[in-house]
Amino acid sequence: MLEQISASKSEILDAAAHCFMTMGADSASIDDIAASLGSTKGRIYHHFPSKGALLAAVQLRAARFTYQAVSAVADDALPPQLCLERMARAHVMEVLRSLPYHKVILQTYTGARAKTSNAFELGMQAQVRAEHRQYAELFRDQIARGIEADIFPERNLTVTVAGLMLMLNSPVFWYQPDRGAGQEFRNTIADDLAEMALASLRA
Amino acid sequence: MLEQISASKSEILDAAAHCFMTMGADSASIDDIAASLGSTKGRIYHHFPSKGALLAAVQLRAARFTYQAVSAVADDALPPQLCLERMARAHVMEVLRSLPYHKVILQTYTGARAKTSNAFELGMQAQVRAEHRQYAELFRDQIARGIEADIFPERNLTVTVAGLMLMLNSPVFWYQPDRGAGQEFRNTIADDLAEMALASLRA
Repeated sequence: MLEQISASKSEILDAAAHCFMTMGADSASIDDIAASLGSTKGRIYHHFPSKGALLAAVQLRAARFTYQAVSAVADDALPPQLCLERMARAHVMEVLRSLPYHKVILQTYTGARAKTSNAFELGMQAQVRAEHRQYAELFRDQIARGIEADIFPERNLTVTVAGLMLMLNSPVFWYQPDRGAGQEFRNTIADDLAEMALASLRA
Repeated sequence: MLEQISASKSEILDAAAHCFMTMGADSASIDDIAASLGSTKGRIYHHFPSKGALLAAVQLRAARFTYQAVSAVADDALPPQLCLERMARAHVMEVLRSLPYHKVILQTYTGARAKTSNAFELGMQAQVRAEHRQYAELFRDQIARGIEADIFPERNLTVTVAGLMLMLNSPVFWYQPDRGAGQEFRNTIADDLAEMALASLRA
């Protein structure tokens, strides 16, 4: 899933994530994103054929950011509860670091029908869903390992994984990075949520 | 917060919640909602001055459904952990019962700027936010009571309440009522999530 992207493309994605976050993905236009970059629309269209493709690229990068951070600390040699605590903490820290990307995911994760009939955009949306599932598998595997080893009680895995992931994503709903909340508060959020997530898996 | 509404108004709100859920709140029109009711737009406009007002009424009813279900079982005479477990279970059961309303909340809970400048709609949106806060207070109060009594470890209350509520709302993101999942599965979801939520508050 990892991919090297150019500094220019990365800058466009950052600006797009920020515009989609503040204006809403429906309202923000390629013009708005170009204006926030102080560049031409041509620079954006050089990398992304449409606004829908740019939006899907932001969503894909969100999944890859967390996948990268969490797979780096996941280790099957560790007991599952310790492995999961590290993964949970890494997830929260990454979500707080790349927050606009995850706010955009939240906006577009509505369960309503897809608004596009463009084959390229539909293909990218399918890839976003596939990579999100693949990411959730990292957690699902460790939870299943813990249930198998009788460390965690038997529970419905779909219910458990979704409940855990939503708890770990909760700051996306309320955290405002520009309200002076610094590194210390981010650590508190990551520590408290990783601890709660782990405790939730116990009997 | 409780309010008696007519059967006709209730039917309009149910149809609106369902249309907003499946088509997306941005795409669904008063025409779509009237068509799904098999009635005229006039019937809807008799109760709701605009689509924005109807959308806010759906959001307000979502908050009131859960407030009603949860305040009915909240009881300060109970130990906080027992009280919270009942509240958690009642919340999940109610969310599954009135699912379309909560899917709409999810769609519109994006953190992006309000799209309306209509004073009536802005006023209703402020009321929705106030009643949602008031609802979360029910949980916050019991968690604070448990921390004070040394039953739960000291944690940041904002982080804790949001993490707990998102865990309890997780089925809104994935549950599909029309895929043959019946009452037994709903009970499993409510039991597992109430148990996980309570466990997450422990050390």
